[in-house]
Amino acid sequence: MMQTILAIDAGGTSTRAAIVDESGSCLGYGAAGSGNPISAGVDAALDAYAVATGRAAERSGHGGTYSCALIAMAGASLGLPFERIAARLEPLGLCGPVRVDSDLLAMFCSGTPAPQGYALAAGTGAVAARITGGELDLVTDGTGWLLGDTGSGYWIGHRIARAVVAELDGLGPDTALTGRLLELLHLDQTAQRLAGRPAVLSTLIEALYALRPVELSRFAPLAFQELSDEVAVQILVEAAGALADTLAATRHPDISGPVVVGGSVLRMLLETPSVADPLIAELGGIQPIAVSDGVVGAAVLALRRSGVRVDEDVFDRISTSLRALRAATLATETRSAAE
Amino acid sequence: MMQTILAIDAGGTSTRAAIVDESGSCLGYGAAGSGNPISAGVDAALDAYAVATGRAAERSGHGGTYSCALIAMAGASLGLPFERIAARLEPLGLCGPVRVDSDLLAMFCSGTPAPQGYALAAGTGAVAARITGGELDLVTDGTGWLLGDTGSGYWIGHRIARAVVAELDGLGPDTALTGRLLELLHLDQTAQRLAGRPAVLSTLIEALYALRPVELSRFAPLAFQELSDEVAVQILVEAAGALADTLAATRHPDISGPVVVGGSVLRMLLETPSVADPLIAELGGIQPIAVSDGVVGAAVLALRRSGVRVDEDVFDRISTSLRALRAATLATETRSAAE
Repeated sequence: MMQTILAIDAGGTSTRAAIVDESGSCLGYGAAGSGNPISAGVDAALDAYAVATGRAAERSGHGGTYSCALIAMAGASLGLPFERIAARLEPLGLCGPVRVDSDLLAMFCSGTPAPQGYALAAGTGAVAARITGGELDLVTDGTGWLLGDTGSGYWIGHRIARAVVAELDGLGPDTALTGRLLELLHLDQTAQRLAGRPAVLSTLIEALYALRPVELSRFAPLAFQELSDEVAVQILVEAAGALADTLAATRHPDISGPVVVGGSVLRMLLETPSVADPLIAELGGIQPIAVSDGVVGAAVLALRRSGVRVDEDVFDRISTSLRALRAATLATETRSAAE
Repeated sequence: MMQTILAIDAGGTSTRAAIVDESGSCLGYGAAGSGNPISAGVDAALDAYAVATGRAAERSGHGGTYSCALIAMAGASLGLPFERIAARLEPLGLCGPVRVDSDLLAMFCSGTPAPQGYALAAGTGAVAARITGGELDLVTDGTGWLLGDTGSGYWIGHRIARAVVAELDGLGPDTALTGRLLELLHLDQTAQRLAGRPAVLSTLIEALYALRPVELSRFAPLAFQELSDEVAVQILVEAAGALADTLAATRHPDISGPVVVGGSVLRMLLETPSVADPLIAELGGIQPIAVSDGVVGAAVLALRRSGVRVDEDVFDRISTSLRALRAATLATETRSAAE
């Protein structure tokens, strides 16, 4: 009888679990909430792994055991409570080791079974990596909102916030982003002045400091809505340029690709021809492989770490069977919601 | 008998109190800890006002009453507990109203009795103002570390931190700031690598995120220590340019000056010829008046708000008598410390 393994892609927004056999066939798929122990807390993350695993097992009718569990997450290099993860998953059928891998490596492995190439991701944060021998070889950026993440959703949102404050403060050019941001925050722009400044500026500053800094990333889409505004376009062009630099810093002359890309901001940038030029130039004719998450890659890594060789056939089997299961899950959920 | 008033300059680091009579003669001077109710807390700020006032009264032998108290502080436009301030100062002799004014206006009034001109300050934050009719007419920047304070100590320190992280991450040029910052934080640069990066980068990132963002301002002096380093000089040149822009945005064609300047970062920039050019150009031949704090201005404002006309003579009397008292206080403290 074939052994089955458990692959979990633990993201900051949601967690995805897949049950996979040694041939690469996915037997079950389930999702749950945030699985990042740093942002969500360890307890909530453990809950998410258990819930997603439970849903995957339930829908698959799989009542067996897992020879190992692999969890892909950000900050995989930090010390994490492996024994607590194991204790939580054992009642659900885990009877082997827990392994943790980088979500960036899982993202790369979601796009290709190739042992080498590059990954570039830009969502709230931004990071790039060179992969060789199936492992992370070099990572650039991903150093967070304060110190890096150049070109990320936070970076774009922060630039938007500063540009709007600068306009209202008489220190920057007029921009359509001001109306957009004030509307998003339900603030009215009036002519009233307070302590030598527009009154709305104080209210805006108060509203912005009330956010956690990373929450500024939710303003990033505003720039994509104002593609005839010079300030907005300049921010996006600089973001694309910065991401091209981050990818360029990972390049090795002997490795041309593939390049796997992920994250909502990177997707939007690549879909915006007027600003994507520096990124397209850095890709140098290589068609990037876009992935939406790292769950296929978590399954690839789980099998590889168990000694299974994941070639094109196995990779395709994982991708295809998982895609079918996800579509079925989505259809079930849509039907439930409609009932 | 002449009435005496109480003038308090409540700063984020220290608080200064002066007892002044209607002629502008300072009768007493005392200092205490942080007096900013937002950063230090209301209780600690009230304590600082009382301690500084008590010391000023003690050293002056002044046992009388104050017809009013004026407190200069940042964020003067925010709602503050005036009645709590009054309740705290009444046992010390206050028998009139408490008034609160902007520390920026007090800084301007510390440098000149002129009713109009400009103020520019750059310490941890950065802000400029146009003064007309003895009041703040227009304020630019001062919008804090996240949204503005361009060219401030925070802004310079943040640029330094990002430049060092970028170098270690392979994303930026080599800079002497890296050695300086690692030394300041007691971190050793080794060849060891961890998860595809230099090991020291993780330690550095951890150390920097452990700080409150504004604490990055303590790195600003490092740039002034590396005036042959291109990255450091570029940061300082951009800071000086940004401060020139902030001042320029307050300018009215009919008002040429005076320009009162304050803050440790602005002082260091103006003393660094190779980077001060844009600031000097913006000053357009006007010799800036440097002040170290706002206590003279708090006394000027206290007298003006009480109906006393503060002309050149009264202003000079305040400045001269306060300078003599501060020198005497310093001498006493130095003697005490030596005993």
